[in-house]
Amino acid sequence: MEKIQELQQRFAAFLDTVSLMGHPEGLYAPVAYTVLQKGKRMRPMLCLLANDLFGGQVEEALYPALALETAHNFTLIHDDIMDQAPIRRGMETVYKKWNSNTAILSGDAAIFMAYQFAERTPKAAETVSLLSKVMLEICEGQQYDMDFETRDDVSIPEYLEMIRLKTAVLLATALQMGAVTANASKEDQQHLYDFGIAIGMAFQLMDDVLDCYSDVAVFGKVTGGDIVENKKTMMYLKALELASDADRQRLRQLFSGENPMDPQVKIKEVMAIYDRLQVKEAVETLMAVWYRRADACLDVVSLPDDRKAHLRKYAALLSGRNK
Amino acid sequence: MEKIQELQQRFAAFLDTVSLMGHPEGLYAPVAYTVLQKGKRMRPMLCLLANDLFGGQVEEALYPALALETAHNFTLIHDDIMDQAPIRRGMETVYKKWNSNTAILSGDAAIFMAYQFAERTPKAAETVSLLSKVMLEICEGQQYDMDFETRDDVSIPEYLEMIRLKTAVLLATALQMGAVTANASKEDQQHLYDFGIAIGMAFQLMDDVLDCYSDVAVFGKVTGGDIVENKKTMMYLKALELASDADRQRLRQLFSGENPMDPQVKIKEVMAIYDRLQVKEAVETLMAVWYRRADACLDVVSLPDDRKAHLRKYAALLSGRNK
Repeated sequence: MEKIQELQQRFAAFLDTVSLMGHPEGLYAPVAYTVLQKGKRMRPMLCLLANDLFGGQVEEALYPALALETAHNFTLIHDDIMDQAPIRRGMETVYKKWNSNTAILSGDAAIFMAYQFAERTPKAAETVSLLSKVMLEICEGQQYDMDFETRDDVSIPEYLEMIRLKTAVLLATALQMGAVTANASKEDQQHLYDFGIAIGMAFQLMDDVLDCYSDVAVFGKVTGGDIVENKKTMMYLKALELASDADRQRLRQLFSGENPMDPQVKIKEVMAIYDRLQVKEAVETLMAVWYRRADACLDVVSLPDDRKAHLRKYAALLSGRNK
Repeated sequence: MEKIQELQQRFAAFLDTVSLMGHPEGLYAPVAYTVLQKGKRMRPMLCLLANDLFGGQVEEALYPALALETAHNFTLIHDDIMDQAPIRRGMETVYKKWNSNTAILSGDAAIFMAYQFAERTPKAAETVSLLSKVMLEICEGQQYDMDFETRDDVSIPEYLEMIRLKTAVLLATALQMGAVTANASKEDQQHLYDFGIAIGMAFQLMDDVLDCYSDVAVFGKVTGGDIVENKKTMMYLKALELASDADRQRLRQLFSGENPMDPQVKIKEVMAIYDRLQVKEAVETLMAVWYRRADACLDVVSLPDDRKAHLRKYAALLSGRNK
């Protein structure tokens, strides 16, 4: 546990030393606003923990970690325009606080800043290459996500592939980057990547649950947002699977975008169906499968088991399993 | 002249072999639509000509050239959303043909594709690093450009710095990348970069003139677009400098965004002032200064003068000076 806190503090102290501002201010201020928000800093932490796992120097992983955090914020800034999301981490989104044009352009600036951070490591070539690969995959995931909004035949495998691209690959790449910085073998890099995919999948499934069962003060987003936006999350897809013909028909109707209804009324009706079908429990069972896979990936990393304790603990923290 | 055509054909043939498509199609189709449009392909050509100038292998510069073209198209796709531009190169813009969200996300995909192309050269680290630097500068230029729309005190030096960032640095970087690929000395890389800045400045000034004095069929953009959007181009700034107090006051009023008037009426009135003040001639004089600077930069490159003939010819072609 001390290791996790130590690295969190190390990254926070490092962030204090980095200037995110520049001229013109209107370009950089939204980037600094977003990157400096209090968040979990999950991607930097995974990078630093992976680097530490393989005995790497923390100094060499700090800029890659910042590159990951900045690149992640790039995706949030642009996604929030596309989704017209007003709130993120309990704060106004860039698109809402400024405007769409600012969010487009400052998001662009953020990704180029991320690339410049990614260069600042002895393993620059590999780090930058991993960044390009993962960012293109995230775009693919976001496109599938948008495509799914107007489709009524999204399958569970399609949904899993979408969240793999949209969420899991960045966590996986964060871990791989840390492993690269620490000179881990290709095999161990791959095990860490696979571990990241598994916790990423679990993490997104948890997000799907939390969208329905959390409140804005805790979660930082509007509750039921996925329902209002007709997002075919795992909650919806599992519900379809478990539903009677009548419920299934009604769910499809509610998520069709036709006959718009009051958002709160819609959320209430959908949640009543989810509760009745025990969809939350079904999705949590799936999450548990992914967490077990994650454990298995970490098991095969060629290091003594006690070395892996920090990363296991961190994954458990993220999942809330240790609470 | 044969060299220019040879490299143009070489790049076109290369482009035929590269797949710009992928899944989901909705993400990649707008990228392919934009990159494959018939354009001048100025940035790839400058890269290939610089590489050829220093005796480089054309094969090693083709991917960097494509990276430049793709990165340029990324800026166009996003700029056209911000500027709400319906037409580009005589074709509908991505934002208009699809929608804003598609243009944001496909633009993002384009830049990550550009980075992946930039890796495919023996000089990957330098090429990618140059790409990040120049792209961040272009964002700065675009932000200044947008800031200027709501300011009425933009100076000519500020305007020149804006167009340096928004336009010239990418041409300069294209030349530098070609020089890097061909193992040119740092000094010669810098001379080529400076040459690029100079032709870039001249090129943007020509664009400012053409916005007023060309038509959509030839220019591929709406004539007078800068006037309608209150863009403080060099035409406007020179006019302010040359104007009587009465004309200056009227110009400021027309470009203030207050009391919106019919676009065609506005264009007609502004153009009458420009013509009376011979603004076109004044801006063309400035252009000539930049072209002379460009020549001087090429003069000091450490190669026999006859080797530089192709690049000089290409710059002349771009400026229309040989017509």
